[in-house]
Amino acid sequence: MNLNEALNALKELEATLRAYNHAIGCLNYDGETVAPRNSAPARGETMAFLSGIIHNRVTSQETGELIETLLAEKDKLCAMDLRKVTLLKESRDDLTLVPAEEYMAYQQLMAEAMQVWHDAKLASDFASYAPYLDKIVAYNRRFAERKNPAAPAYDVLLDGYEKGLSHERLDPFFELLRRELTPVILEVAARPKPDTAFLEQSYPVHLQKKFTDRVMQIMGLDRDDCAVGETEHPFTEGFNKHDVRITTHYHEDSVLSNLYSVVHEGGHALYELGVGDELQGTFLAGGSSMSVHESQSRFYENLIGRSRPFCEVLLPELKALFPEQMAGVDAEKLYRAANLSTPSLIRTEADELTYSIHVMIRYELEKAMISGALKTADIPGEWNRMYKEYLGVEVPDDRRGCLQDSHWSFGAIGYFPSYALGSAYGVQMLANMEKDVDVWGAVRSGSLKPITAWLGEKIHHYGQLLTPDELVLNGCGGPFDPNCYVNYLKKKYGELYNL
Amino acid sequence: MNLNEALNALKELEATLRAYNHAIGCLNYDGETVAPRNSAPARGETMAFLSGIIHNRVTSQETGELIETLLAEKDKLCAMDLRKVTLLKESRDDLTLVPAEEYMAYQQLMAEAMQVWHDAKLASDFASYAPYLDKIVAYNRRFAERKNPAAPAYDVLLDGYEKGLSHERLDPFFELLRRELTPVILEVAARPKPDTAFLEQSYPVHLQKKFTDRVMQIMGLDRDDCAVGETEHPFTEGFNKHDVRITTHYHEDSVLSNLYSVVHEGGHALYELGVGDELQGTFLAGGSSMSVHESQSRFYENLIGRSRPFCEVLLPELKALFPEQMAGVDAEKLYRAANLSTPSLIRTEADELTYSIHVMIRYELEKAMISGALKTADIPGEWNRMYKEYLGVEVPDDRRGCLQDSHWSFGAIGYFPSYALGSAYGVQMLANMEKDVDVWGAVRSGSLKPITAWLGEKIHHYGQLLTPDELVLNGCGGPFDPNCYVNYLKKKYGELYNL
Repeated sequence: MNLNEALNALKELEATLRAYNHAIGCLNYDGETVAPRNSAPARGETMAFLSGIIHNRVTSQETGELIETLLAEKDKLCAMDLRKVTLLKESRDDLTLVPAEEYMAYQQLMAEAMQVWHDAKLASDFASYAPYLDKIVAYNRRFAERKNPAAPAYDVLLDGYEKGLSHERLDPFFELLRRELTPVILEVAARPKPDTAFLEQSYPVHLQKKFTDRVMQIMGLDRDDCAVGETEHPFTEGFNKHDVRITTHYHEDSVLSNLYSVVHEGGHALYELGVGDELQGTFLAGGSSMSVHESQSRFYENLIGRSRPFCEVLLPELKALFPEQMAGVDAEKLYRAANLSTPSLIRTEADELTYSIHVMIRYELEKAMISGALKTADIPGEWNRMYKEYLGVEVPDDRRGCLQDSHWSFGAIGYFPSYALGSAYGVQMLANMEKDVDVWGAVRSGSLKPITAWLGEKIHHYGQLLTPDELVLNGCGGPFDPNCYVNYLKKKYGELYNL
Repeated sequence: MNLNEALNALKELEATLRAYNHAIGCLNYDGETVAPRNSAPARGETMAFLSGIIHNRVTSQETGELIETLLAEKDKLCAMDLRKVTLLKESRDDLTLVPAEEYMAYQQLMAEAMQVWHDAKLASDFASYAPYLDKIVAYNRRFAERKNPAAPAYDVLLDGYEKGLSHERLDPFFELLRRELTPVILEVAARPKPDTAFLEQSYPVHLQKKFTDRVMQIMGLDRDDCAVGETEHPFTEGFNKHDVRITTHYHEDSVLSNLYSVVHEGGHALYELGVGDELQGTFLAGGSSMSVHESQSRFYENLIGRSRPFCEVLLPELKALFPEQMAGVDAEKLYRAANLSTPSLIRTEADELTYSIHVMIRYELEKAMISGALKTADIPGEWNRMYKEYLGVEVPDDRRGCLQDSHWSFGAIGYFPSYALGSAYGVQMLANMEKDVDVWGAVRSGSLKPITAWLGEKIHHYGQLLTPDELVLNGCGGPFDPNCYVNYLKKKYGELYNL
């Protein structure tokens, strides 16, 4: 095979994997949004079958030879092709560690686990879910040990979500957050709460859907490229720059829950929609690591979405749709209600100040689960103990405790730290952005386009061409400094609560 | 390969095709319901790619040898296996006529055509759609000529939807309908219309959705096995007996439109849900021919759904959800409004009396399109002329004319007659059912279970094990007689309009 033939074979492989991943992604999205409940087993079978084909193709001898041929001439490859081969090799090395049958069985296990988790969460029934989680933990541990027997298994998993990440980098990060934020959280908890009575009314779902439309317009999300679905635990699925799906959930008694789901997932969507044309359909399409992705979603959700100017823009929209519920509410009142800080039970609905502590608890639990120090059956107890210790709250049931998140059910162990890291990256990116862009003028004008354009240039359009570290450097304008995040939170909540 | 090995290979082939067809079906359902508008080209590519894999697999030499091996020992095969091989061979013979590349290009063409049709319909812009229809007609003609150069091409296409169907069987059928029904249609058109003013009010969509829930309950459609989506042109997609999707459309100014979409598609769904356990996942899963499928959907929609007893059951449901709109309406008034007969523009919303004339027009047009007697560009003119001639209505635009149906866009030419045949089969099946079941007592009790159980036993549970002819005989209890249909319509509309 000469270089040209190899590059053509690479393109053919991209087209093949694109089709299979598109199909699997569609089955997954369908399953998480609109599929009937009893459809899970057959869908799991199909997804496992298609994943098996991907596995066979990527681990095949032909693909191995293709990678060797291309790497032997790496000096002749353009940056895009070199990066593609690098990512393909990483993926092949990982998949080669798991025999096809085991891999397919794992795919099917996850599909079933998602369904079991849904039901277990509704019923607050951890016991029915535990056997699935057990198997998922065992799979991840076994996989990590095969990949790098010398490293702690959890470090290997972290590295899978963010190249180079380890407990050595994360322990001090979370230690800083715990040390600096815990006193602030306690001080805030002792202060009078803002008035949120206006939120505790009925906001009819069909009107909340109209509000979603307006929020997406303000964010610059074109419905012709980005659909919105409903699901239990909101997520975003991006197939290409003309097909991204955000999801949300509607609760009649919580208009902000939907709002911030849409803004958060909308941040993910803007990233996927902003990936460069030349990367579409290739291995470099789609967003980079989870923490870079979360830096975007958490950026829009909190730094923009929970800012005073954004509340000023939302106010007339809310008043138009919910005149009675919003009677007497001004932008400052909305802003303060949207930034109510209180030690609470649910991570996705936590305020910015306590949010990373929720993540830290999951980080500590995952470390212990994967090392074997924490048995699956003991997770609820340990979860509840840590929520009491770090946030001072009693967990009343597992629905609002260790069953609240879907991540473990789809095999994502080592993913949670991305949320805290991403939140911290975002703060530093905002400071850097403010040097170039009139951020708050843009928000007040009711269009986030200049903000998205800046992020597009620094981050989105690169897709996976740059490494996560390079993207973070690009966005932050310098090495990552978690103190920016801590200082931002102290300042914002100091002002809000007169500390 | 011995017989046992061949049967195992057949099972493996079933599993493979089941996975690919599931993925393609899911992509299609997603595209027709929730996908963003601009997603069509990439989805078309993926569907074409996956269809190509199916094509390769079915037309492969191995599959050819497998069929030969099994047919060589056909005496040793059970009825199920023999029927599977028969259907596989038919499918292979068809696919072998079309080279893989042409087949994939056609799949992609259809995916794009669906999107173009959607837009063209909204804009009443036939010209933008014509080039796609041209290609689809040319493909179908070419395919028919390859399959049987001796027969008229349209007969070959009809036979593809219903084994043995031809213009020789259909011409007299439609001639009978035209001859017997046209005078009745004209007489009815001259009579006073029932009072339908109560329907011409606003029925909010979020309340119509609750009505859908109740209608599905009455039909015995379990939401855990059967989801409901929204689309432009309602259809049903069945993956297996635990995963069927019906679709509907909501118009605030037309509560009956949604109702009868749900009941019609619900009829298709009950068929798919009733296929026997032993057939699940095999080539024999899912419903039989299109006309047998339509016999079920049209049965529920009209014979049950537009009956007096069903209107009696619906009335309190409607009154509970729409008390103001339904004030002063009794069951008889609802029944008469639901059976308003008037020569109209839209097939899917046509009353039972005029319905088959809409179908007949499409039948005549398709015959002429495929023979080449009618050029694509001339379809709107010819459509409008026939609507004037046979129904006496002026077609104001192509949205309400030749762009109203999606069928040609997904390649279904020769499908339309199934609707009229199915309607006619259903009437004869009802007469046969009434010998065994207290049909109207069941309807009045608010549960269609005894009706569905009878159809399940005679038709549904066979899946594709029996031929369409055998199923029709089973359901009708004797040879098909179109006069039953004509007499039923004359009696019903005679009574309604005092003819």
